[in-house]
Amino acid sequence: MNKINIGIVGLGRMGQTHARNIVVNIPEANLYAACSVAEIEFEYAKREFGVKELYQNFEEMIENPNIDAVIIASPSGFHTEQIRLAMEKGLHVFSEKPIGLDIEDIKETIKIIDSHPNQIFQLGFMRRYDESYQYAKKLVDEGILGELTLIRCYGIDPSTELESFVKFATSSNSGGLFSDMSVHDIDLVRWFSGQEIKRVWALGKNAAYPELDELGELETGAAMMQLKDETMAILVAGRNAVHGYHVETELIGTKGMLRIAQQPEKNLVTIFNEQGIVRPTTQNFPERFREAFIREMKEFVSCIIDGRQPNVTANDGLQSTKVALACQKSIKTKQLIDVE
Amino acid sequence: MNKINIGIVGLGRMGQTHARNIVVNIPEANLYAACSVAEIEFEYAKREFGVKELYQNFEEMIENPNIDAVIIASPSGFHTEQIRLAMEKGLHVFSEKPIGLDIEDIKETIKIIDSHPNQIFQLGFMRRYDESYQYAKKLVDEGILGELTLIRCYGIDPSTELESFVKFATSSNSGGLFSDMSVHDIDLVRWFSGQEIKRVWALGKNAAYPELDELGELETGAAMMQLKDETMAILVAGRNAVHGYHVETELIGTKGMLRIAQQPEKNLVTIFNEQGIVRPTTQNFPERFREAFIREMKEFVSCIIDGRQPNVTANDGLQSTKVALACQKSIKTKQLIDVE
Amino acid sequence: MNKINIGIVGLGRMGQTHARNIVVNIPEANLYAACSVAEIEFEYAKREFGVKELYQNFEEMIENPNIDAVIIASPSGFHTEQIRLAMEKGLHVFSEKPIGLDIEDIKETIKIIDSHPNQIFQLGFMRRYDESYQYAKKLVDEGILGELTLIRCYGIDPSTELESFVKFATSSNSGGLFSDMSVHDIDLVRWFSGQEIKRVWALGKNAAYPELDELGELETGAAMMQLKDETMAILVAGRNAVHGYHVETELIGTKGMLRIAQQPEKNLVTIFNEQGIVRPTTQNFPERFREAFIREMKEFVSCIIDGRQPNVTANDGLQSTKVALACQKSIKTKQLIDVE
Amino acid sequence: MNKINIGIVGLGRMGQTHARNIVVNIPEANLYAACSVAEIEFEYAKREFGVKELYQNFEEMIENPNIDAVIIASPSGFHTEQIRLAMEKGLHVFSEKPIGLDIEDIKETIKIIDSHPNQIFQLGFMRRYDESYQYAKKLVDEGILGELTLIRCYGIDPSTELESFVKFATSSNSGGLFSDMSVHDIDLVRWFSGQEIKRVWALGKNAAYPELDELGELETGAAMMQLKDETMAILVAGRNAVHGYHVETELIGTKGMLRIAQQPEKNLVTIFNEQGIVRPTTQNFPERFREAFIREMKEFVSCIIDGRQPNVTANDGLQSTKVALACQKSIKTKQLIDVE
Repeated sequence: MNKINIGIVGLGRMGQTHARNIVVNIPEANLYAACSVAEIEFEYAKREFGVKELYQNFEEMIENPNIDAVIIASPSGFHTEQIRLAMEKGLHVFSEKPIGLDIEDIKETIKIIDSHPNQIFQLGFMRRYDESYQYAKKLVDEGILGELTLIRCYGIDPSTELESFVKFATSSNSGGLFSDMSVHDIDLVRWFSGQEIKRVWALGKNAAYPELDELGELETGAAMMQLKDETMAILVAGRNAVHGYHVETELIGTKGMLRIAQQPEKNLVTIFNEQGIVRPTTQNFPERFREAFIREMKEFVSCIIDGRQPNVTANDGLQSTKVALACQKSIKTKQLIDVE
Repeated sequence: MNKINIGIVGLGRMGQTHARNIVVNIPEANLYAACSVAEIEFEYAKREFGVKELYQNFEEMIENPNIDAVIIASPSGFHTEQIRLAMEKGLHVFSEKPIGLDIEDIKETIKIIDSHPNQIFQLGFMRRYDESYQYAKKLVDEGILGELTLIRCYGIDPSTELESFVKFATSSNSGGLFSDMSVHDIDLVRWFSGQEIKRVWALGKNAAYPELDELGELETGAAMMQLKDETMAILVAGRNAVHGYHVETELIGTKGMLRIAQQPEKNLVTIFNEQGIVRPTTQNFPERFREAFIREMKEFVSCIIDGRQPNVTANDGLQSTKVALACQKSIKTKQLIDVE
Repeated sequence: MNKINIGIVGLGRMGQTHARNIVVNIPEANLYAACSVAEIEFEYAKREFGVKELYQNFEEMIENPNIDAVIIASPSGFHTEQIRLAMEKGLHVFSEKPIGLDIEDIKETIKIIDSHPNQIFQLGFMRRYDESYQYAKKLVDEGILGELTLIRCYGIDPSTELESFVKFATSSNSGGLFSDMSVHDIDLVRWFSGQEIKRVWALGKNAAYPELDELGELETGAAMMQLKDETMAILVAGRNAVHGYHVETELIGTKGMLRIAQQPEKNLVTIFNEQGIVRPTTQNFPERFREAFIREMKEFVSCIIDGRQPNVTANDGLQSTKVALACQKSIKTKQLIDVE
Repeated sequence: MNKINIGIVGLGRMGQTHARNIVVNIPEANLYAACSVAEIEFEYAKREFGVKELYQNFEEMIENPNIDAVIIASPSGFHTEQIRLAMEKGLHVFSEKPIGLDIEDIKETIKIIDSHPNQIFQLGFMRRYDESYQYAKKLVDEGILGELTLIRCYGIDPSTELESFVKFATSSNSGGLFSDMSVHDIDLVRWFSGQEIKRVWALGKNAAYPELDELGELETGAAMMQLKDETMAILVAGRNAVHGYHVETELIGTKGMLRIAQQPEKNLVTIFNEQGIVRPTTQNFPERFREAFIREMKEFVSCIIDGRQPNVTANDGLQSTKVALACQKSIKTKQLIDVE
């Protein structure tokens, strides 16, 4: 059997993670080509992974007839266009989240995806492939919590990355805290509940980094949501977790509660010292979701081989972006916002 | 030194707890008189605590010149009037929460309290006297969390008590989930932040017990709040915690996070069995706050002896009721509500 | 009813704890007299608890006909003689552990105790009165662990007290690590298993404090034991727990495992900071067993009032001392030691 | 670069794990040949992994000139001979633990290994490659615990496997609890302390499965050990952990304590239900050490490619077997045993 030839666009932290996973962990795939506008990323792909086909232009790359599939890890603003181009070239597409930044643009993109039902499209909601999340989902689907009444999701980046975020946000548009961080959590709310979100109210506060005010960014934000069936959802997002990378999900149901990563435990070590009883913590997303990134990519490649669509669809991307935008609008208007 | 003679009104679960603590744990006080309209509670006080002065009428009881102080543990609707009557008789007053159900009525009561500055008035926010809460408060005041950005409070009653609550709510007015349960959490938000609450949005869902709909009650509710200085607060209240009595508080600040009773651990025992690793849980409020109830009552008696006012004031009662009523209003109107 | 008049001998840390508990927490008893050779302790009793009957000589104190019971908290070497004297005077006796340091001497003392069956005798194994230990004992007796196969007990004092211990051990005979610290754990092994200990091997190591070698003391020690029915027991004792006061007990049975204070959690607070996830720890025995000390003293007073003997007997003291001495002998001889 | 061609002998649970890891996770290696006397294992290799070169005889397999390396996962009694044969054929060897069952036999085997310094030899102490153990080792080597004084290791198999173990032990010689289970823990003691073990005492008890008595096997065993520098070690081994697979290691030092897998947490999920607060548990060694098995095999293949010897040596196998045999002897003689 021939290996799947993959071309990747974007070799920032996210792109590098996918590139390495293809090379080291997925024998069925081949990192065939890479595309980047940054010279340094370009060199990186050559040196680190021995990629020979290198492009500075996405459209050129996908002209290469040996490529079977693309991984889109470019800045968010490019996603929809690159998805459409690749789809129309007959390629399978794995795109990082968010699928896009504008609702109409996303809808148009989905039309094009839908018109190529034999090509695989997968969106990078890797948490669904994390072992603990999958374990929880199975329990919830088996009914151990009864009917869900409330879902709480925390997604807080480590303080250690705040400085570099401030730099980034000064020159680029992150999309805002809810679009950038909470889309994962919004997806989890929808995935666990099987429900769409109806109404949101969002708040934020900048305390440690008031310079974020000028950038229109938030250090910490919270959103409360009502789902179609009255289930409640609470999201906390932030960029200032002193203890590391805090992604936590709670599900409250009529028959019990369940928490995933109630504490962001790094491993199975406990230290007893002058501080007390200490559990070291996960420091960032590549560490926390290392296995999940591998498993989502294995799934993408398997779907191509087996000719079946993955669990995470383009519509999941549309819905989560809709809700994230509603949160951003609520921050601006200080009002309750109905989702579409 | 003579013991402080205390008269108690109301001998339901709350009243019994206070009565027993006076008798067993507070050598400086004497359970001198009891007042109840329920024959059974009447007999209970006589039999259990040997109380000799028994009354069916509060006004009669406070005529007794030997009484120094009263504990008000009657139904919420009676609190303000009994506080006023006792204050005007020159007695020290410990009143259970809520201070009252109507804002104007509470304000009037506070005027009367304020006009007797030499008499002690204390409200039953016992959580402030819990060892873990006091430990946390000290750390927060010392600044280990930096500036607070978000406070999350859970107060969920055990499922085992839901049936008896349904009976109670059928015949009486509980005041609603937020007034009945969340006032404690609202008080904690104010205590930890030193800020008043500006705006709220509240939601609720009945799933396991749809009969609560007819009673206008909620099985699970959530409220998001903005404080005057933009700090965020999230409250979850409920009556259906299958695992026991779940009171949890989280404080997020610019320098760290802190959780009080992240898990409602009953004691220091861990069991390893077919279920996995099991920590038994606290089952109800008298168990969880046993020590806090004793300590708040010791504080009340100490205040009388030392001639100083306690930390929990009538104004704390007014503010927490205001916010609880705003939550109830938000549930009804489905809108954002500005607090006063 | 008249209060029980209690005379206490020894007002070191242990004696002060008992004295305060009598005064503050036990309305049925009265701290009537105190005996100490240390001027400073003498003054303390007067000033702190208002004790009026003060003695420098134990025999004189028990001549006072108003005394109903004595609490013996003097240095270990005095216990047996004071027990005998008080028993023969017709007094109820609460003695701190160990009951004595010499087996024959203890046996003779027990004869005298046994010849006064109407007087209460209780030994200070307060752990049996701790809430978590009582909870565990109930579960074990109900059979949730099946048949016990192994018991592991840790008793490690905090490093912060090592310096003052070195001073103490320079001038006094502590009895050695196993007699001083492990008697509590030996008692727990016997209490949970209902079995006597047959054979022991003990080891020790001084690393942080080699000066302990000269004192014949151990920084950390371990003992493995075989019980009569082949159940195994493992004891670790020490004086250098950097994280606080570590008392932990594990029970392994055919149907499950159970741990008491697997981690010495101070309270219900969890802190998330640069260190990771931190649970503060209990710092010393008065903190860890505060409630247990009150409850054992309440039990002593109740036994006097009700005319029944407590659960902890003089024989428990004899047996635990026997095993502790066997451990000390094992350390010296480097051999397996059969107990008696 | 050509892939390393590997021949495996033994396709029981351990062999299957290694075979799958080679195929799925190690692109640099190729599962070239398999050897088994069991028809069913034979078929399995063909069907599951598409292995074409199949042998019923180890000597025949290693005649195949295409083979670069062997993995020995046959019954323990065959290890030494197969190691010698493969070494003398010029092959790299990965052998499952224990290296052998007889000290003289192991010593002779080590001579042969040592006489082929350019061939890689690695022993299957996979725990050293587990992420949590590696994290702990780094901290210990950096000195965060100061000087080690005591090491405690638990290795308890799940009850669910006891029945199949009884069947196995009826027809085969497991080597006994300490040789079969504790060699891993003995290796950890040596690895963490850098010290050899001097003296042991071992005990055992059969309670749930008295039929183990007849087989000369133990349900639960414990051993206490003294290391050359007086450091203490405590081992508990067993076959009856009702809650799953319990492998736990504790390190006590002069500056702190550290525990690896204090609780055998399966993942990051916590469930709150009628039982209390429940953390699901790891159920068996393939689950607990899944990643470690992959990482040790990656290390073996890397060592071959890089031409360097791995961290786990044949001498580690010799020493751990020596100590395990001393434990078994202690069980028989009921005496303290000096290790060689």
